[in-house]
Amino acid sequence: MKKINLDYTAAAPVEKAIIEKMLPLLTEHYGNPSSGHSLGEMPRKALQEARENVGRLIGADAGNIIFTASASEANNLAVKGFAKANMKKGKHIITSPVEHFSILNQLKTLKKEGFSITELPVDEYGLVHPRDLADAITGETILVTIQAANQEIGTIQPLAELVAVAKESNVVFHTDAAAAVGWIPVDVQKLGIDMLSLAGDQFYGPKGTGALFVKRGVRLTPLVEGGTQEKGLRAGTENVALIAGLGEAARIAAVQLEERAKEAAFFRDKLKESLFSAIPYLHLNGHPEKRVPRNLNISVSFVEGEALLMRLDMAGISVSSGSSCTSQALKSSHVLSAIGVPPELAQGSLQLTAGPGSSVEDIPYITEQLAEVTNILRSMSPLYHQFMKEAKQNA
Amino acid sequence: MKKINLDYTAAAPVEKAIIEKMLPLLTEHYGNPSSGHSLGEMPRKALQEARENVGRLIGADAGNIIFTASASEANNLAVKGFAKANMKKGKHIITSPVEHFSILNQLKTLKKEGFSITELPVDEYGLVHPRDLADAITGETILVTIQAANQEIGTIQPLAELVAVAKESNVVFHTDAAAAVGWIPVDVQKLGIDMLSLAGDQFYGPKGTGALFVKRGVRLTPLVEGGTQEKGLRAGTENVALIAGLGEAARIAAVQLEERAKEAAFFRDKLKESLFSAIPYLHLNGHPEKRVPRNLNISVSFVEGEALLMRLDMAGISVSSGSSCTSQALKSSHVLSAIGVPPELAQGSLQLTAGPGSSVEDIPYITEQLAEVTNILRSMSPLYHQFMKEAKQNA
Repeated sequence: MKKINLDYTAAAPVEKAIIEKMLPLLTEHYGNPSSGHSLGEMPRKALQEARENVGRLIGADAGNIIFTASASEANNLAVKGFAKANMKKGKHIITSPVEHFSILNQLKTLKKEGFSITELPVDEYGLVHPRDLADAITGETILVTIQAANQEIGTIQPLAELVAVAKESNVVFHTDAAAAVGWIPVDVQKLGIDMLSLAGDQFYGPKGTGALFVKRGVRLTPLVEGGTQEKGLRAGTENVALIAGLGEAARIAAVQLEERAKEAAFFRDKLKESLFSAIPYLHLNGHPEKRVPRNLNISVSFVEGEALLMRLDMAGISVSSGSSCTSQALKSSHVLSAIGVPPELAQGSLQLTAGPGSSVEDIPYITEQLAEVTNILRSMSPLYHQFMKEAKQNA
Repeated sequence: MKKINLDYTAAAPVEKAIIEKMLPLLTEHYGNPSSGHSLGEMPRKALQEARENVGRLIGADAGNIIFTASASEANNLAVKGFAKANMKKGKHIITSPVEHFSILNQLKTLKKEGFSITELPVDEYGLVHPRDLADAITGETILVTIQAANQEIGTIQPLAELVAVAKESNVVFHTDAAAAVGWIPVDVQKLGIDMLSLAGDQFYGPKGTGALFVKRGVRLTPLVEGGTQEKGLRAGTENVALIAGLGEAARIAAVQLEERAKEAAFFRDKLKESLFSAIPYLHLNGHPEKRVPRNLNISVSFVEGEALLMRLDMAGISVSSGSSCTSQALKSSHVLSAIGVPPELAQGSLQLTAGPGSSVEDIPYITEQLAEVTNILRSMSPLYHQFMKEAKQNA
């Protein structure tokens, strides 16, 4: 059976060129970058090269890149690290309700520790409005953390406008750009961003790689204390091979960004068109235009996303329902709830992400399969029958 | 020029069998373990297999293993995570002055936050005495954190006795076993240990891998909050390939532990004998017998370790002076200072670690080179000339 991956947000294969960058750092050049002797040289160079490539992808100096194991870790270092180092200046943090759990969960912890947290409203597309941010900033506000793009529905925030508002009040701005970097242009200098988190696996780097950009002068308390690695912000022997993989993925992503975005959007738009014309009662979640090019998120009325996921999986098609990081938890999405998608629709949500293996030739099969499983599942839904009965009566 | 690595604590090459375990998880089986569809299956199995292998190496249930990026991270999760989750029970923590910086530095942070920290005395070998621990425990003590073996001088602590003392007072016991696991038998169940940190790269696994054993019932606050990975104790998509590498390294280490230990000790003892008979005024740091088999740590009187390191490097021999993680910092070792090595001797310390490439055939060359650079450096040392003059006068 043909395998069609429509869940590239969850994971993507690591291409050969990237693996070839990694392997020598496990074998021939296996040294520790902290070593004073010559075995440390190649690993040190590899770290520096990776730092430059990651910096270049987001318009940052290499010296301001801190490697982490994930965007989740970068988010925790940025927000808790900043809160702890700067709490004397104030204890108010502003965020949005559609952030990743690696933002929201730590803010709950900070709240218990005496911080006050404001979640700005979002509109039906998940957009935060700059005026709402302006209204929320007080003299106590030390940090704004708003994502660059949403991890589930792909909505792209008006980052430049939001940063401008924060800057007017000299409030530090962090953005979780895990869903954006590699897919839309993100330039920390042009945007005036103080801290930015990214995830290597979101632009085809190896899983277990992430980075935090920290502008010079922004003070953080480390999560992992010990050695002097990563400017003392993240102790522990560096994962040189994986970092080299992240660097190479960043280099390739910078070169291919436009092409990848164009191809992904083309596939995504064709898929959307095909699905919406073949299957009634579908809803698009997120903004129709302001969304990352590879992301399609739909709700299939009257059915459950998990049931769709499993039946599509049996047909060789991998999709995600809800956020990839928590899909095993089977909770309904906090993002869809925040943008006002009613629970019965939110439960039937599917996230479809284009990637390197996506081909428009597969769209008829995908459409046919989703139509078929939707029909089967709807036929078992009392709500659907009730709805159809009422629709007929009203006709 | 022949390259002789005597710094396997800093890094070791990753063997082919381990890399072969890792590669398929970057390519063919690249999925995300959290995915609900079939792409998640192989990565989930790989995680489970690695968890079982790491557990087996230390006598722990797979379900009690939390993967981290390093022993440093495991140490921070264990100590800060426990302190934060249990501070209502008390705010006193007991440790030793010879711990790794990933223990000591976070304890400084906890001290600033109102915890009281007791550093037990150590003897001239770096040993902590159980009676001192018994004397230090108060009704406020919530945690004891004492390493299994020292990262620099290799001294093995009397863990069973220390744990027994802590258990008498129902105090939770954590051990940083990074320098011990894979080299001496460590069984958390037999020892009664509550938490144990280990580092994959210390037994030939890939750099950037670590784990924390956490006994069921011990409550921790995570450093990285977000998704539900690692029982909610460490959010972020798992580094499946590297974890599989760690697991395979653990499996091999369990099988080869005795043989590796025997071979390393044989080489180490021969090297020690050769150096001590060829070079006058050498001092052994650490315990003569109670030390990890691969570790030799010596002080060369009248010279600086960094100068030795650089000159030996030019002769193709890699050694470390001080702790591998901080050797770039050029500080004199806190471990040697804690065991009472005078600063002038501590500065001339070298850590020599045997590993897979170590051969007794190289010992004459190593000895000859160290003797030569020692002669050169001593000939430039006014202290040495002063000492020799006085020795002659006294003779």
